[in-house]
Amino acid sequence: MEFEKFKELLKEDRCVRRYDEARRIDGEVLESLVGLVRYCASGRNLQPLRYRIVSSAEECAEVFPALKWAGYLPDWDGPVEGERPSAYLIQCLDTDLTQNLLCDDGIQLQALTLGAKTLGIGCCIIKSFNVLTIKERLHLPENMKPLYVLAMGYPVEKVVIDDIKDDDVKYWRDSNGIHHVPKRKAEDLIIK
Amino acid sequence: MEFEKFKELLKEDRCVRRYDEARRIDGEVLESLVGLVRYCASGRNLQPLRYRIVSSAEECAEVFPALKWAGYLPDWDGPVEGERPSAYLIQCLDTDLTQNLLCDDGIQLQALTLGAKTLGIGCCIIKSFNVLTIKERLHLPENMKPLYVLAMGYPVEKVVIDDIKDDDVKYWRDSNGIHHVPKRKAEDLIIK
Repeated sequence: MEFEKFKELLKEDRCVRRYDEARRIDGEVLESLVGLVRYCASGRNLQPLRYRIVSSAEECAEVFPALKWAGYLPDWDGPVEGERPSAYLIQCLDTDLTQNLLCDDGIQLQALTLGAKTLGIGCCIIKSFNVLTIKERLHLPENMKPLYVLAMGYPVEKVVIDDIKDDDVKYWRDSNGIHHVPKRKAEDLIIK
Repeated sequence: MEFEKFKELLKEDRCVRRYDEARRIDGEVLESLVGLVRYCASGRNLQPLRYRIVSSAEECAEVFPALKWAGYLPDWDGPVEGERPSAYLIQCLDTDLTQNLLCDDGIQLQALTLGAKTLGIGCCIIKSFNVLTIKERLHLPENMKPLYVLAMGYPVEKVVIDDIKDDDVKYWRDSNGIHHVPKRKAEDLIIK
């Protein structure tokens, strides 16, 4: 794969919060996505992360109320019915193996969102959720500690990247419903 | 980009610890790699990570002694002269912005290693290093806290993935110098 194609994939892989809820994601597709993380680097090669796949409408309805959406959009309570995620991957740490996963969480989430994007699936990495609710409603084993919820679905919103202005990192939505994400310029990420 | 091509890239992107040290990496290439992380998802969109590019032989020689290599290979002190990294990216947290970066570190490291791989460059994500030494020798500003060192270079070693046996996660090197990494099977990553 060429560098420019990979860069294009990264650019296209935006966090999406509104989905075509009716269009479900096949269980096998979700399993093949989880299969990708097998190839990820892992601190001390411990590979302590596991995934609970949530794909049925019934289970999705159990997960959704536990999530908080888009902290910078205070007037928006999250996606309405019909635009909610059609699947989730619950990233869990196997606490029997370690309490210290180094940065495996982010490494794997990046592989997952990029892999999903190649299939036209949009994702949103969610850290703000009720861990106990998720654990109970999905009957997770005691040693499985939910770290992140990856919300997934076929996107029905447009997301664009803007150059950051006045160091204001807050994303926002314009009158046409387009979601704008201010990003720092590449040169500002380099320590001179 | 197709899913299978992306999966292939993930498979090929192995942690490499021996490099063709004489083959340097162009500064512009390193800048374009850092440029990739601009497109990465970021917790609260804060984008608090910065990179110090280390590419000259002189600066590489300052960084190398601060690193610990391959904890599972006790008889190996790290790459010998001529096989050391020809560049580093020092991933730093801007502590003026936050102390809590969520999983931005891993997300960006995955984007960096994959991007590097498309250019034939191998990487090793290193967490075990002397933070103070790095900070001093590279004259990092007070608010730049080194989180990870990404060692880089053109690989001169072969790395293969094996199915894990008896839950033994330790990588090892065979008599031909091939580096073996046991990985859990995809189905074992899924919580049933």
